[in-house]
Amino acid sequence: MTITQSRPFSERMQNMPESFIREILKVSSNPEVISFAGGLPNPKFFPVDRIAAAAERVFSKQGTSALQYWVTEGYLPLRDYIAQWQSAKAGRRLAAEEILVLSGSQQGLDLMGKLFLNPGSNALLEGPSYLGAIQAMSAYQPEFHHLKIYEGGPDVNEFNKAMKTLKPPLFYCIPNFQNPTGNTYDLSHRQAMAATEYNNDTIWLEDNPYGEIYFEKNDLPDFFNLLPERTISLGSFSKIISPGMRMGWAAGPKDIIKRMSIAKQASDLHSNNLTQRIIYQFLIDNALEDHLDAIRIFYKEQANFMIAEMMQYFPPQVTWIKPKGGMFIWVTLPDHIQANALLKTAIEQNVIFVPGQHFFIDPKQGTTSLRMNFSNPSKNEITKGIKVLGSLVYDMME
Amino acid sequence: MTITQSRPFSERMQNMPESFIREILKVSSNPEVISFAGGLPNPKFFPVDRIAAAAERVFSKQGTSALQYWVTEGYLPLRDYIAQWQSAKAGRRLAAEEILVLSGSQQGLDLMGKLFLNPGSNALLEGPSYLGAIQAMSAYQPEFHHLKIYEGGPDVNEFNKAMKTLKPPLFYCIPNFQNPTGNTYDLSHRQAMAATEYNNDTIWLEDNPYGEIYFEKNDLPDFFNLLPERTISLGSFSKIISPGMRMGWAAGPKDIIKRMSIAKQASDLHSNNLTQRIIYQFLIDNALEDHLDAIRIFYKEQANFMIAEMMQYFPPQVTWIKPKGGMFIWVTLPDHIQANALLKTAIEQNVIFVPGQHFFIDPKQGTTSLRMNFSNPSKNEITKGIKVLGSLVYDMME
Repeated sequence: MTITQSRPFSERMQNMPESFIREILKVSSNPEVISFAGGLPNPKFFPVDRIAAAAERVFSKQGTSALQYWVTEGYLPLRDYIAQWQSAKAGRRLAAEEILVLSGSQQGLDLMGKLFLNPGSNALLEGPSYLGAIQAMSAYQPEFHHLKIYEGGPDVNEFNKAMKTLKPPLFYCIPNFQNPTGNTYDLSHRQAMAATEYNNDTIWLEDNPYGEIYFEKNDLPDFFNLLPERTISLGSFSKIISPGMRMGWAAGPKDIIKRMSIAKQASDLHSNNLTQRIIYQFLIDNALEDHLDAIRIFYKEQANFMIAEMMQYFPPQVTWIKPKGGMFIWVTLPDHIQANALLKTAIEQNVIFVPGQHFFIDPKQGTTSLRMNFSNPSKNEITKGIKVLGSLVYDMME
Repeated sequence: MTITQSRPFSERMQNMPESFIREILKVSSNPEVISFAGGLPNPKFFPVDRIAAAAERVFSKQGTSALQYWVTEGYLPLRDYIAQWQSAKAGRRLAAEEILVLSGSQQGLDLMGKLFLNPGSNALLEGPSYLGAIQAMSAYQPEFHHLKIYEGGPDVNEFNKAMKTLKPPLFYCIPNFQNPTGNTYDLSHRQAMAATEYNNDTIWLEDNPYGEIYFEKNDLPDFFNLLPERTISLGSFSKIISPGMRMGWAAGPKDIIKRMSIAKQASDLHSNNLTQRIIYQFLIDNALEDHLDAIRIFYKEQANFMIAEMMQYFPPQVTWIKPKGGMFIWVTLPDHIQANALLKTAIEQNVIFVPGQHFFIDPKQGTTSLRMNFSNPSKNEITKGIKVLGSLVYDMME
């Protein structure tokens, strides 16, 4: 029984990184630990009672249908709701056929990799980028190319050069309140990038899980508005209702949505039918904007508080991008200080974060940066944790 | 907006068949249509009220935890329950580490293809086989090889020869009440196949969604018992509780389960946390065996009734495998009659089924066979539908 077999694992499995973040989260189950490492929405905004009420209504009115198999594309009233809700932001009337319900937007990353990446294909993505996207796409063995992120967006010349020379089938980006940097593309970057003359057939995969968690309302157009024929936008209920229910969507041109459905059918037949109906019931029974406003106000306050504490307790050589939304702050240490070394000493004092290198393909990049989550820790934990980190950085600067 | 773009779809997407079955199910939404085409569990056994009660308990006791992100491997009490429940059948004590919760067992087919199939790898599978498995694995571009299914199991010499010459990384089989044939491997086939001297490093992927829906209790050992070091067994709550909740599991050696978890993390982070807890609550609050017995008795009666009607109304040249469980009967027409031609005339009389060719890689195989579902139609529909089909077959024989 304990014989170790040689297993015929496929080549693609050699490349798939395990998530350091999910590993470190296992450490953080210790209640003594102050965690800035996670990407957890604050559970105080989980609308438990209203979800329970929605579930009760679904069971009593349509229990049998909710428990049966359903079509791959999703529960039509939910697709209609998403289409209508997103139309204002998209600047055009969306149809249900432009929406595919997903088992969390993570599934969209896997499906888009499956649809568009051959082994050796050029995949262009921000540097740093969302680790889960790197994991999902690495199964399809592309050549990854990072496009460096600066405050306000990537360098447009670098972007044009990459598009011209790489001709990537896929460009993956998170223009709103990025994970991990918290950065947002400004209007001029959005417009200049969308106007690139090197578009080839590139599909723009715009990941937008934090779009609704803005600190100030803005009218920045998404690439989904600017390039409707070639952009797939991924949305998620995880950050605004509940991540445990694993429900998201893809929005985009009908021909791509149709192909995504075929690939999804092969992956999981369809998303949880019961959960789709519970979320739909919740959406029509409640004022979503009021709920979102409460999250926005609280997260903004958390971000501002963390920044105030960093200004007080961190050496002035430490810098960061001030987020306009989302859940993260990207902090950069003075050049000679490694975030990994900081983490090692911080863990001993029960404070954790994610070193920046984990958001790059090449772990030699991002070594002096760290991702700090502000959505989940209490103010007291923020103060204590930032004090610990500040004091350690001062020590390391000596 | 209506410009048709040339899309840079990957090579693997060229091979992925769309499910004919799910397409034909869209036709069957017409209530006039008598459908033997689906693979739907009979909704009269969906325990709606008990699932609703379980959900209410989960919301009231652990609502916040149920709505948060969770670990990829699954909710530990559910994994423990599955491990303990399956231990008796497995013939050994299973640990939670040998269980991975899946978003339906379909996901296990995708993950196993991802783990073990390179482009051009030999994948050995029954002929006919489950269409969803062909779809899922085709994304990984293997060479498929069918192992012909006879009553009682494949020809053992053919199996040995295939294992010797193909050295497949993956052998995919459904030994219990197969979809689409309803066939079950007998004891001698199980033992002889497990004893093959040509095992190489082959991973045995044993799909077992119908295992609990037996018509007579049996002690047939699964390959999961006979070859524990190399078999992944896929299980599902779809046929016994609810398919709409998309919940299944993989059981197998810890090293493979660990790799599957890494691949699953990239695919959907984790399965629906709320649903895992609702299913667990349902399982501990209710007598599962009583529920299963009710399904077993009803499905057996349905199968026997359909066979009795086929004996009465079908020409004696039509043959079938009598199922010992599951939801399907595989019917074979006289050689010169094509199931596709029969379907064309049957649809005009509002009767549908799935022609056998859809369960083969090569659509020139299985052309005189059809898959008949007996779990879902009423007795009245069975009689009416079988009469229609019988009369059409008689006509075609003239």
